[in-house]
Amino acid sequence: MGSPGGAQGEVVTAAVLIIGDEILSGRTQDTNLRDIAKYLGDHGVDLAEARTVPDIMEEIIAALNALRARYDYVITTGGIGPTHDDITADAVAAAFGVELYEHPEILELMTARFGAELNAARRRMARVPVGGDLVKNPVQGPPGFTIGNVFVLAGVPQIMRGMLEDVGPRLRSGAVVISRTVRVEGSGEGALAAPLEAVAKAHPAMSLGSYPFYGEGGFGSNLVLRGRDPVELEGTVAELIAALKTVGIDNIREVDGV
Amino acid sequence: MGSPGGAQGEVVTAAVLIIGDEILSGRTQDTNLRDIAKYLGDHGVDLAEARTVPDIMEEIIAALNALRARYDYVITTGGIGPTHDDITADAVAAAFGVELYEHPEILELMTARFGAELNAARRRMARVPVGGDLVKNPVQGPPGFTIGNVFVLAGVPQIMRGMLEDVGPRLRSGAVVISRTVRVEGSGEGALAAPLEAVAKAHPAMSLGSYPFYGEGGFGSNLVLRGRDPVELEGTVAELIAALKTVGIDNIREVDGV
Repeated sequence: MGSPGGAQGEVVTAAVLIIGDEILSGRTQDTNLRDIAKYLGDHGVDLAEARTVPDIMEEIIAALNALRARYDYVITTGGIGPTHDDITADAVAAAFGVELYEHPEILELMTARFGAELNAARRRMARVPVGGDLVKNPVQGPPGFTIGNVFVLAGVPQIMRGMLEDVGPRLRSGAVVISRTVRVEGSGEGALAAPLEAVAKAHPAMSLGSYPFYGEGGFGSNLVLRGRDPVELEGTVAELIAALKTVGIDNIREVDGV
Repeated sequence: MGSPGGAQGEVVTAAVLIIGDEILSGRTQDTNLRDIAKYLGDHGVDLAEARTVPDIMEEIIAALNALRARYDYVITTGGIGPTHDDITADAVAAAFGVELYEHPEILELMTARFGAELNAARRRMARVPVGGDLVKNPVQGPPGFTIGNVFVLAGVPQIMRGMLEDVGPRLRSGAVVISRTVRVEGSGEGALAAPLEAVAKAHPAMSLGSYPFYGEGGFGSNLVLRGRDPVELEGTVAELIAALKTVGIDNIREVDGV
């Protein structure tokens, strides 16, 4: 939202790198991926891949180097606290082949907050790779940072979301993907697959997906249409509804959906 | 749970491959990763990495080949329905260099259910790679399948969880990782980092992590200790609590935690 919007059809891509044993052990339910996906979508950036890696230096470095070479942007979450398992800054610096230094602005903030209690562990959070820049943290604690095409954010969701607000304005924006959802009730995917595919094939620039639901309220599928051209999107919704009706599916309504 | 437990110290690894545009667009909050992580942990298998890729053939093939070469097992979720965007079976067959065929058992199930309504779209769900085997679906719809070290499950969470029950018994089981959580209230990570690191360094076979929390109830951190040796785990919990007390941190209690 609020992004100026890029050139028609331009595609800007990003990847998310989630860092943390707690996600891979099942201890913590990640929600950052979805928040970042929505945020990027609103800014005209396509989230093209996500990876989750443990708190192991070589794993973080390898994943980061693979992703930053391939996509326009990489956003990492997690591993920037003061404890020994917080090694993201070290890994990012190693990936870029640069050193870490104590950023004077962060050190000043932390000195003001902690005074004599600014110990070695807390000073770890002042470290930024040479050539990096800060990402504001409006919530609590020290800022994140950015270097090259990589943004390094906190793992705690409310802090991550706050930092994200300082990422959007720095992104080159592509054409925003817009979507519409057509909800079909009482028909399974097997019944609607043929008309859905026919409409999808007629609109190769768009993405049409089917997401079935089951529950007390019955069953059916949400058909999600996504594209960059609002006129084509509207037309395709109408075509799809017409195509569904020709095979006898008429419990259809448009609903809001991401 | 219920696994016999592998040789002391043996490590068996797995990766999860989440397939679906709906996760990367932010439309859907994934919960399968956490469910699989917990399930694997209970079976003595370490989840070492996770990737999320879009519904694009080449992306699925590349990720699957990278993961299955590196880890003992790969579990995929999503993309096995009847619609045109369900291309996981095709991608898995291509990754293994084999053809798909209509599995007679699935075809029989579907014929019994759909009769004359067994159309081409529904028949897509009967396709299994040559050399593959079925994964039971006790919930609804056709089974998943397995080939080589790869298990291909549904994306709908309740169906995925049902299929998972037929995966566990087929896994080689390593030594189960057990964990304890020590909850510290009223002290930030910066205050506890030094004793935590000292204890972590004294126990290289264990993994100690710090997960801060903030909320109405105050702030603090959950210190999670994970390892394969129950005696060492108990001892390390005691050492950590003692180390925290030496630096004046004593609002500590043990809590249940994954």
